[in-house]
Amino acid sequence: MPQVLLYGFPTRVSCPSGRAVPSRANLARACHGAQQKHAWPSACISQRDYFSAVLGSFSNVFGALQKGGVRSYRSTRPRRAAAQTAFASAECSEEFVELAHKLADAAGEITSAYFRTKLDVENKGDESPVTVADRAAEVKMRELINEAFPDHGVYGEEGGLDIRKGEYVWVLDPIDGTKSFITGKPLFGTLIALVKDGNPILGIIDQCILKERWVGAAGRPSTLNGVEICTRKCGPVGEAFMYSTTPLMFEGDTLRQYNQLAEKVRIPMFGCDCYAYGLLAAGFCDLVVEADLKPYDFMALVPVVEGAGGILTDWQGQRVKLDLTSMLDGSPSRAYEVIAAGDQATHEAAMQILNE
Amino acid sequence: MPQVLLYGFPTRVSCPSGRAVPSRANLARACHGAQQKHAWPSACISQRDYFSAVLGSFSNVFGALQKGGVRSYRSTRPRRAAAQTAFASAECSEEFVELAHKLADAAGEITSAYFRTKLDVENKGDESPVTVADRAAEVKMRELINEAFPDHGVYGEEGGLDIRKGEYVWVLDPIDGTKSFITGKPLFGTLIALVKDGNPILGIIDQCILKERWVGAAGRPSTLNGVEICTRKCGPVGEAFMYSTTPLMFEGDTLRQYNQLAEKVRIPMFGCDCYAYGLLAAGFCDLVVEADLKPYDFMALVPVVEGAGGILTDWQGQRVKLDLTSMLDGSPSRAYEVIAAGDQATHEAAMQILNE
Repeated sequence: MPQVLLYGFPTRVSCPSGRAVPSRANLARACHGAQQKHAWPSACISQRDYFSAVLGSFSNVFGALQKGGVRSYRSTRPRRAAAQTAFASAECSEEFVELAHKLADAAGEITSAYFRTKLDVENKGDESPVTVADRAAEVKMRELINEAFPDHGVYGEEGGLDIRKGEYVWVLDPIDGTKSFITGKPLFGTLIALVKDGNPILGIIDQCILKERWVGAAGRPSTLNGVEICTRKCGPVGEAFMYSTTPLMFEGDTLRQYNQLAEKVRIPMFGCDCYAYGLLAAGFCDLVVEADLKPYDFMALVPVVEGAGGILTDWQGQRVKLDLTSMLDGSPSRAYEVIAAGDQATHEAAMQILNE
Repeated sequence: MPQVLLYGFPTRVSCPSGRAVPSRANLARACHGAQQKHAWPSACISQRDYFSAVLGSFSNVFGALQKGGVRSYRSTRPRRAAAQTAFASAECSEEFVELAHKLADAAGEITSAYFRTKLDVENKGDESPVTVADRAAEVKMRELINEAFPDHGVYGEEGGLDIRKGEYVWVLDPIDGTKSFITGKPLFGTLIALVKDGNPILGIIDQCILKERWVGAAGRPSTLNGVEICTRKCGPVGEAFMYSTTPLMFEGDTLRQYNQLAEKVRIPMFGCDCYAYGLLAAGFCDLVVEADLKPYDFMALVPVVEGAGGILTDWQGQRVKLDLTSMLDGSPSRAYEVIAAGDQATHEAAMQILNE
């Protein structure tokens, strides 16, 4: 009888290790103590129930969307140790989470309508294709933010930086993975982050075609379609399944560093964009290592990964922040290298190899 | 008003260029004459209808599966020029197609039940992970073939070659993309081919999680969830979106050759396994170029790609065949290089670059 991850179907899930969200100090320990190597630690149902459960799951999510989104869709099982919350002491208001769901719903409606359709693909300066959907979704999300919180700033891939007087900034990437999008591959995602004083306190990864939504928010465990998720313990780096979007994102020093690590992991893989971080947060891979990223490419990923017990930093181990000061100074937009790992030991070992 | 590909929802689709399946001689011309560059040439509906259509589509497919598979799910629109059928003069009995659907249903039921579950991942000699599901699905498919056609041979990734007295051999790969499978990425596929005298006359690519099934059969247009599909015209190679599963599949000469081509296409992309050939057949990318493949990795792809107007050969332009003679001689299993293109001109131009 296999153990099955049943996201989007919380009423069938039982978790004997459920507990209230613990303190920051022991969260990682508790979470990883429950992990088995390369195993999903919860949610047992019988094989016989699988098909009806999955079918029910999709129907539920579709139904929820037709009624206005999955934001009312909450896990009913007891809370358990599911987060290494480096941001556990921060606060994220429920109204921010609700708005983030609303943004994801709106962006998903627009991008879904253009998926696998005829589009005039344009070239930007950096040669990445940008679609009509990308721009329309960001315009819509900016409208919704301005309506709800007119003093919140917005920084988006398409529309740039719009700073207001408040301490909050929303960081948006309507379609992370435009190359996947325009070739009909349903692994692109909408990334929505809320940053307070430069620190991401809320993140959503939304895959609108597969109806998969990861949510991370300060002080609470990350979820996939409303069900709490947890990273897995990897063991030695030589056993790590590692994702990067493409080897072409590395060059010069970062290529040399990446190659050092790629030679030592179990399998280096490609082609996932933000979806890889969702897989890591849900315990299906061990490392995501990328370069040449902009803040809108990874701000939303931090709360999702950290709220699931993982860790996401730059290649020097520094927590990533939105550096508004240099952005407002007109400094050239810098590129970031990012490493995400399911557990602290794997993160440290991988960083050491990157920096040898 | 965007043009939308509505696979799995044929009753909403109209195609003004519908016609009966034409002769082999003018199929490619007719198909490509209807193509626009980087455009899906059929299936117009309004944006407003999109959500209900897609939701309906998924419900329909799920409903069909609950009733025993999508094999009874047929397009009702008029047939149109949709295939460059190099194999149009061959015959593929409807009972073979029905069995292929039955095999895909059975394999999908098994592999779905193990997707995103705890598995003991093993290492084979070639280091590719093999799952319990992989083996169980092949055993089940072999049983079904032996029941239906006891004189048909079977060649599978897991169980090897089982030759019978008949002229037909089924070629099976229960999970093409095991690395995707074990990391929770729903782009792996079940590959099922029927080979007659070494030539593939029937192929299925089945993605059981997304419920997407491509079918190609000699003498008829390829379909995706019952709806006819067509490749697109690319134009110069410099505009081609090209997929390969991973750059690590190339080494030595093939790496040098691949790099020559990768430098000239618009975007080289990774991470799709067999799904990339499905995207090409449906008109969403232009080239798939791979190496280090075994016959079970590509036999099923040939009818799907060719029945959609594309072309799939080795890197010398030779049509791929199942070489039973050398397999029975006990010759070492050779690796193949494969190139698939949406149109003849792109295929020729890409091959020329590969062989410079």
